[in-house]
Amino acid sequence: MTLTGNLIIGASSRHGANGSFQAVAASSGREMEPSFGGASPADLDEACGLAEAAFRPYRAAAPEARAAFLEEIAGNILELGDELVLRCMEESGLPRGRVEGERGRTVGQLRLFAEVVRKGAYLDRRHDEALPDRQPAPRPDLKLTHLPLGPVAVFGASNFPLAFSVAGGDTASALAAGCPVIVKAHSAHPGTSELVGRAVQKAVADCAMPEGTFSLLFAAGRSIGEALVADPRIKAVGFTGSRQGGVALMAIAARREVPIPVYAEMSSINPVILFPGALAERGEAIGKAFIASLTLGAGQFCTNPGLILAVEGAGLDGFVMGAKAALGEAAAQTMLTPGIHRAYCSGIEALEGNPKAQKLAEGLAGEEHQGRAALFSTLGADFLAEESLADEVFGPSSLLVRCRNEAELRKVVDHLEGQLTIAIHIAEGDIDAARALMPVLEEKAGRILANGFGTGVEVAHAMVHGGPYPATSDGRSTSVGTLAIARFLRPVSYQDLPDALSDETWCLGR
Amino acid sequence: MTLTGNLIIGASSRHGANGSFQAVAASSGREMEPSFGGASPADLDEACGLAEAAFRPYRAAAPEARAAFLEEIAGNILELGDELVLRCMEESGLPRGRVEGERGRTVGQLRLFAEVVRKGAYLDRRHDEALPDRQPAPRPDLKLTHLPLGPVAVFGASNFPLAFSVAGGDTASALAAGCPVIVKAHSAHPGTSELVGRAVQKAVADCAMPEGTFSLLFAAGRSIGEALVADPRIKAVGFTGSRQGGVALMAIAARREVPIPVYAEMSSINPVILFPGALAERGEAIGKAFIASLTLGAGQFCTNPGLILAVEGAGLDGFVMGAKAALGEAAAQTMLTPGIHRAYCSGIEALEGNPKAQKLAEGLAGEEHQGRAALFSTLGADFLAEESLADEVFGPSSLLVRCRNEAELRKVVDHLEGQLTIAIHIAEGDIDAARALMPVLEEKAGRILANGFGTGVEVAHAMVHGGPYPATSDGRSTSVGTLAIARFLRPVSYQDLPDALSDETWCLGR
Repeated sequence: MTLTGNLIIGASSRHGANGSFQAVAASSGREMEPSFGGASPADLDEACGLAEAAFRPYRAAAPEARAAFLEEIAGNILELGDELVLRCMEESGLPRGRVEGERGRTVGQLRLFAEVVRKGAYLDRRHDEALPDRQPAPRPDLKLTHLPLGPVAVFGASNFPLAFSVAGGDTASALAAGCPVIVKAHSAHPGTSELVGRAVQKAVADCAMPEGTFSLLFAAGRSIGEALVADPRIKAVGFTGSRQGGVALMAIAARREVPIPVYAEMSSINPVILFPGALAERGEAIGKAFIASLTLGAGQFCTNPGLILAVEGAGLDGFVMGAKAALGEAAAQTMLTPGIHRAYCSGIEALEGNPKAQKLAEGLAGEEHQGRAALFSTLGADFLAEESLADEVFGPSSLLVRCRNEAELRKVVDHLEGQLTIAIHIAEGDIDAARALMPVLEEKAGRILANGFGTGVEVAHAMVHGGPYPATSDGRSTSVGTLAIARFLRPVSYQDLPDALSDETWCLGR
Repeated sequence: MTLTGNLIIGASSRHGANGSFQAVAASSGREMEPSFGGASPADLDEACGLAEAAFRPYRAAAPEARAAFLEEIAGNILELGDELVLRCMEESGLPRGRVEGERGRTVGQLRLFAEVVRKGAYLDRRHDEALPDRQPAPRPDLKLTHLPLGPVAVFGASNFPLAFSVAGGDTASALAAGCPVIVKAHSAHPGTSELVGRAVQKAVADCAMPEGTFSLLFAAGRSIGEALVADPRIKAVGFTGSRQGGVALMAIAARREVPIPVYAEMSSINPVILFPGALAERGEAIGKAFIASLTLGAGQFCTNPGLILAVEGAGLDGFVMGAKAALGEAAAQTMLTPGIHRAYCSGIEALEGNPKAQKLAEGLAGEEHQGRAALFSTLGADFLAEESLADEVFGPSSLLVRCRNEAELRKVVDHLEGQLTIAIHIAEGDIDAARALMPVLEEKAGRILANGFGTGVEVAHAMVHGGPYPATSDGRSTSVGTLAIARFLRPVSYQDLPDALSDETWCLGR
């Protein structure tokens, strides 16, 4: 398949004329062919019009048809074969194993949502039967189901060019819910986006879904993405990216004549709390495992462990020893984009220049465009005093906060903003202390995990990839796992509807 | 029990010193004793501090304890006996039957949420068991449950001084979810509010709940309510009132450093669509039933039928005849407050002065402070052309939109904003036409009902009292029925937590 650099607007494909850009190979920095044409306001208008027109017929499609459509997308993505893998590797700098794994995750996610649609439990259907003889007044027949919100805007994420991009978790859950999707492609992987977009477009046609069910827009600047969120035909937004970007979209959505929900997964430093018993028992091993998590995917996971909290002591020294040893062997890795690499280097420089932070160790040096892993250390009191130490440094860098005692560690935990994940490392003897900390952890994070690290987010029924602000814009939601579909639904109640009407609505759960 | 005019701040009771106000008897306009002292910023700060301190212990209470607490509140409200009924009647102008009915609803609502808490299904607990042998990587054990958001601010509504006020639906569902509540009392019924507030305060003490579980603030102006929404310790807001009021709270919540959800039930004209077959079969009877719904509670229901849509014809003439006849016998009724009465009169005057609207009939004249029911008529084309005709007139007034044909009626329906309810009146022969309209009704309203009127909102599992903006600020929610609890919850996932910790969290579902 030859890449065209074209926009996908419903069933059509054409080159955008509103500026253009090219992908940049992550490892070499060279510009890649072809040139991608940016969408104009007219292109956006057409995509929104098609999405609006598609909404009713798409949501009315039988569950089996919608499920088959999701599976068709999955099949089409696999059929792209190595062309997709190679383009994605080149654009993102991610190694083959990771890209293939991510493709498997993307396909698995689509298939899991197909199963969710078939089962229908996500509709939370409820029926209160009529009580015609109730006193003082009869009760009507009431049926409740959930309906899709309408067309959804999805912003592709740089760090998951497949699993959180064109046909990733946001798109899969929105389509599963019955919402047409317009994707604003991330400029870091436009070729990957086009390939996957065409796989979706083909599935729309082959499954006879309304053409506006899916569109894919490229944009040379920010204005088209902002206009997409502001368009009255868009009813919800899915976004994974920076805090600044997410907050900007929230503001646009709140200013609309009719405000809409924005599900933005933004910023998290994913604290890891090392308890004394665990440190005494296996501090060095935890240090090694930590570095493996820190450097996974060049540290470019939303759930990367950016903060380690522990009380000073021999156990912690063991952890540091293990971490240093592992870090000393950690190869530098190509980062997703030159921009991300620059931001990472700035973050490292800021820590290096901060008298309150000491560099404990760093990974192997690499080529100029690669991210070199680093571990810094600070004191609990300094961390509490200096807000900038809690800023996310996107990449393979982490900060160890050495606390004087349990009370200081508790203060540091209380001080944290909302997080996607908090990990605790515990041994038998730590249970009471961990239990005492659980309530605050529950209030700070969407996922709490023991004796592991947050990298590796299962696509499962019981997964929450969310968390209180600023981890996400809306802590009531998850963007990974089957519960993600709930973001794009609203309840509706039918009262005393005759069977001839309620068969069409409630029972089919459109 | 002697009314004190005191604020309730946790376990304490004291007179606010930030201005004062008195209730006004709805039927006489006279000021009633005692004087209610307004809360100061320091009072607010204390209530928020107590609520924050109460959150962890309150949410950790066993389900049975929380359920018993809700039932204790219900029992305490009933024990207030006629004192509550009489005060509420005098403050609101509502007749005894309605006040007693509303008390029953309030108590029933609390007991229903007790049952919901005991059953625990609302937690949507999910468990993905570990798959240690899975290739290429093992799956961890994942458990998901839902946790309460934190302290909730509730604004009492003028039109349901019991069921949507101090211990009404918002408070009951928030307490059931595990959230402490701070109520900002509505100034139209402060005595009713104090009595119910003390019933809740007593239940907090008798059930040994943390004292900050509940506070009740009176305020002489708007600033304390606004400061309550802006306070960082408040994590969600429940509101029933005007569009202007709801939109103002949404703006405050969006501007916070950490934005929070606002559940505002605001504005709805609850269209009623009369189909030709139903009109031909029983137009006159529908007209009579319509007037009964229109004038219920002086038209002061959120679900009051403010708009009638039908195609011109003999059947519609029958409806008008029935409505006119019933309206001619409809007594004027005391409205909730002088302010609401004034606003109603202004709305009527605006329609009277609008050349596009004709007054078809009105109810019996009453005393000066009473609301006289009225039915106006306009043409479909005029309704489409003039936005102000779709404005809510809070009270027993409705507008009949006469459409030239089915196509024009469809245009009018397409033109509608979001609604709490849309009712359709249909006969056998109308089914196909109604089915064709269902998708747009589903997109416009939270509840669709056949052959009835939206007044009378069942507290049930399958009820939705919500709807797309501007009916509510958040169309993904309901403020009536058991699903209302979902507004105050967020999902959290536990990964590989040892039983010693997960027993405490997941299984108890705190």
